[in-house]
Amino acid sequence: MSPHQANRPSLRFGANYVPSRGWFYSWLDFSADDARRDFADLAEIGLDHVRVFPIWPWIQPNRTLIRRRGIDDLLALIDVAAEFGLGVCVDLLQGHLSSFDFLPSWVLTWHRRSVFTDERVREGVGTYVGLLAREVATRENVFAVTLGNEVNNLWPANPTTAADSTRWAAELVEIARAAAPRLLSLHSLYDAAWYDPEHPFTPADCVEIGDLTTVHSWVFNGVSAIDGPLGPATVTHADYLVALAAANSPDPARPVWLQEVGAPRPDIGEADAAAFVRGMLDAVTANPALWGVTWWCSHDLDRGLADFPEREYDLGLFTVDHKIKPATRELATVIRDLRAGAGPSPAPLRALVCDVDLRAVPERRAEVAPGSPFHREWVRLRESGPLAIVNATDADDAEYLGARGVETVLSPA
Amino acid sequence: MSPHQANRPSLRFGANYVPSRGWFYSWLDFSADDARRDFADLAEIGLDHVRVFPIWPWIQPNRTLIRRRGIDDLLALIDVAAEFGLGVCVDLLQGHLSSFDFLPSWVLTWHRRSVFTDERVREGVGTYVGLLAREVATRENVFAVTLGNEVNNLWPANPTTAADSTRWAAELVEIARAAAPRLLSLHSLYDAAWYDPEHPFTPADCVEIGDLTTVHSWVFNGVSAIDGPLGPATVTHADYLVALAAANSPDPARPVWLQEVGAPRPDIGEADAAAFVRGMLDAVTANPALWGVTWWCSHDLDRGLADFPEREYDLGLFTVDHKIKPATRELATVIRDLRAGAGPSPAPLRALVCDVDLRAVPERRAEVAPGSPFHREWVRLRESGPLAIVNATDADDAEYLGARGVETVLSPA
Repeated sequence: MSPHQANRPSLRFGANYVPSRGWFYSWLDFSADDARRDFADLAEIGLDHVRVFPIWPWIQPNRTLIRRRGIDDLLALIDVAAEFGLGVCVDLLQGHLSSFDFLPSWVLTWHRRSVFTDERVREGVGTYVGLLAREVATRENVFAVTLGNEVNNLWPANPTTAADSTRWAAELVEIARAAAPRLLSLHSLYDAAWYDPEHPFTPADCVEIGDLTTVHSWVFNGVSAIDGPLGPATVTHADYLVALAAANSPDPARPVWLQEVGAPRPDIGEADAAAFVRGMLDAVTANPALWGVTWWCSHDLDRGLADFPEREYDLGLFTVDHKIKPATRELATVIRDLRAGAGPSPAPLRALVCDVDLRAVPERRAEVAPGSPFHREWVRLRESGPLAIVNATDADDAEYLGARGVETVLSPA
Repeated sequence: MSPHQANRPSLRFGANYVPSRGWFYSWLDFSADDARRDFADLAEIGLDHVRVFPIWPWIQPNRTLIRRRGIDDLLALIDVAAEFGLGVCVDLLQGHLSSFDFLPSWVLTWHRRSVFTDERVREGVGTYVGLLAREVATRENVFAVTLGNEVNNLWPANPTTAADSTRWAAELVEIARAAAPRLLSLHSLYDAAWYDPEHPFTPADCVEIGDLTTVHSWVFNGVSAIDGPLGPATVTHADYLVALAAANSPDPARPVWLQEVGAPRPDIGEADAAAFVRGMLDAVTANPALWGVTWWCSHDLDRGLADFPEREYDLGLFTVDHKIKPATRELATVIRDLRAGAGPSPAPLRALVCDVDLRAVPERRAEVAPGSPFHREWVRLRESGPLAIVNATDADDAEYLGARGVETVLSPA
C-alpha cells in the first residue's frame, strides 16, 4: 500500500487559536482561565492541536530585552492546551495577524530598518527565535515552531529580495532547529509565494526550508471568483496548493501541512459553509502528501474591536460566546470519520504534468495561479478524482513517480 | 513688586520619570515597588513633581480597546508618587521617547494612516485622551496632562501640515480640558517648532494651545557647538527658549514651563555637568515667565538595553543602581536655596526687541535659531543680566511692557 492509500487515521486536525476574548490583545492581560474555556471548545470537537501566536514586540520590546513573563505566559498557554490533550505549534514572529503588523519600535520610524535584511535586526530576531524555541520545547505537547505567521506580509513595509528572504528564513529555521531539535522547525508564507511572479518570497523557500511544507489556502485569492462558494475551483483550492507544493519538493516524501484554511465571507456565505468544509476536506484529505489540516480559526472576533477586514470577524469555529457553528459540526464529523478509517477509498493516483518548474523560474508563477490555463485544466481533471501534479522534469522518472505513488501521468490538453 | 522680582519660592522642580529598571518597557511588567524605590530617590533631593509616560499602544492596542489594567497601572504609579508627596504630570500619547516611537498596529503598515490627519485615528486618540485625563484627574496629586511627549517627533512618519497639527492639538487639549477641568491641559513639542522654518508645528501652537507654554531645551540642537559646555550660549539656552516663548504669547502673563532640560554628553562632559546645572538654573530661574523646571531625566538607562542614541544612557539624576551624581547635588542645592528665598537679587528687567513675529511669519524661524545674529546678540546682552524678549509690535506698548515687568527696551545692535 503506497502512502496515499491509507485511510488517513494519522491525519492531524487542529485550529489556529484566536482567543475569544480580546483577540491577541489578550496577551497583555493573559488569563489561563479564558484559554481553558476556549480550548475546551476545541477539544470537544475532536481537534488534536492548536497553532498559537505570541506577539513579538510585547515579548522583545527592545532588541536585547526578552521579557521572562512574556515567555511564562506562553508556556502557561501551552500547559493549558496540554490539559485538553492538545498538541501545540508555536508561531514565533507575530508579526502579521489578520491585517495587523506588530513590529517593535526598534525597527520602526526613527529606527527604521528591514526585518529581513538588517544585520542587527536579524541578530536580535535570531536570539528571540532561539530562546523561544528552546523554552517551548520544554513542553512535551509542543510539536513544532513556525518562524512566524505569513511573514511575507511584513513586506513591503520591510524591504527584501528573494535571495534575502531565503537567507533570512534558512538562517532562522536552523537557529530554531539547533535550539529545539525535537520540534518540527517550519516556515510559513501566504500564497503570493506560489502565484505572484514578482513576489520576493518563492516556492523554493516553501519546499526547501523547514521540516515540512506549510500552505495557507484562502479562497479570496481569486478562486472563489472563478466558480463561487461551492464550485470545484473553490472547493479544491486547498488540495491544489498541497499538490503544487508536493510537486515542487526536492524530497518526494516531504509532507505538506495545510496550516491555514477557512470559510471566509462573503466568498463563502454562512449557508454554504458546511458544504464547503465537507467538499474541501473530502478533496484535500485524499491527497497523499497531506500531513494535517488546521482551521482558521478557533473563535470569532468580537465586533467591538475595530478596523479588521470585514471577513475576519466570522472565521471562528465558535462564536465569541462559545456557540458552535454548522460548519464546525461538519468538520467534527469528517475528523471522526477519518479517524475511524472511513475515508474515501483509495484510487490509483493520477498526476498532471506542469511545464513550469516553479523553483527554477519563479518569474513564471502566474502560469499556475488561480484562473491560469494550467489551474483550470487541473480543476477540470480533479473532478474525476484525486490528482497530483508532477513537474515535466520528473514526469518520466519511474523511481520518482513510485516514491510519490503516481500511477498515471496526464499531459495538459 | 512685579512677578519677576519675587525670590521664586513657588518655582516647581521635578524630574521626567524614566524607570531605573527596564526603562518604559517596565510598563509591561509594572512594579509599584520598583517605582517606590525610584521615587524615594527623587523626593530625597527635594523635587516636588514627576512627569510620567504611559505607552499608548500598550493601553490602546485596538482603536476601540482601552485596557483597564493599563489605566490601573498608571493610577498605581501616580499613587506611589503621592506616597512621596510628588505631584504628577501625565503625558498621554507615547508616542515618542528617546528616539523610539511607540505606535499601535492600527496606524502602521497595512493600516497606515497619519496620527495627525486621519479622522478615525483622531477619533480613537480623542477617546484615549478623554478617558485617561478623566481617570488620572481622580488622583489629587495629578496637576497636569500633556498630550504627549514631543509629538512632533511622530512626524514625518505621520504626515501633517501646520494647519492640521494645530487643529489636532487644539482639539485634543479641549477634550482633555473637558474631561479634567481641574488639570492643566498642555501641549509639548521639541524646539524645531521654534527654529526650523519648514517644521509643520509652529510657535503659535506652543503659546496658544494649552494652559501654559512648555519648552524643551536641549543643547545638542546647535548651541553647544557655539561655545562649548559652559559657554554663555549653551548655559542660557533654556532661558532663551523661555524668553522666546514669553515674547510670543498672546497673554503676557502666560507662564512657561521648562518641561525638559538635561546635561547631555558629549556636549556636556561629566566634569562640567554640575557647573552647567548651576549656570543654567541661575539664568533661567531669573526669568519671570518661568513656571518650573523638570529635569530629563530621573534615572540612567541600563546599558544592557540596545539601540538608544549614546547620549540617552547617562542623562539620569541617579544611576540605575540609585547612586546620586554631582550635578544632582548641585540641582538639589539650587532648589533648596530658591525655596529659602535665596535667589538672585531682582534687577530692573531689560528686553531685547525681536523683529520677527514668529506667530505671524513662522517661515522666518531661522532668524532666531541658535547661531543667528539675533540669538548671538541676545546671548551677548544676557551676560550682563536677565534679558527678556519683546516683539517689535509690542515694543512701544507701555501697558504690555508693564504687564511683563519690562523696564528697559533694547534694540539689536
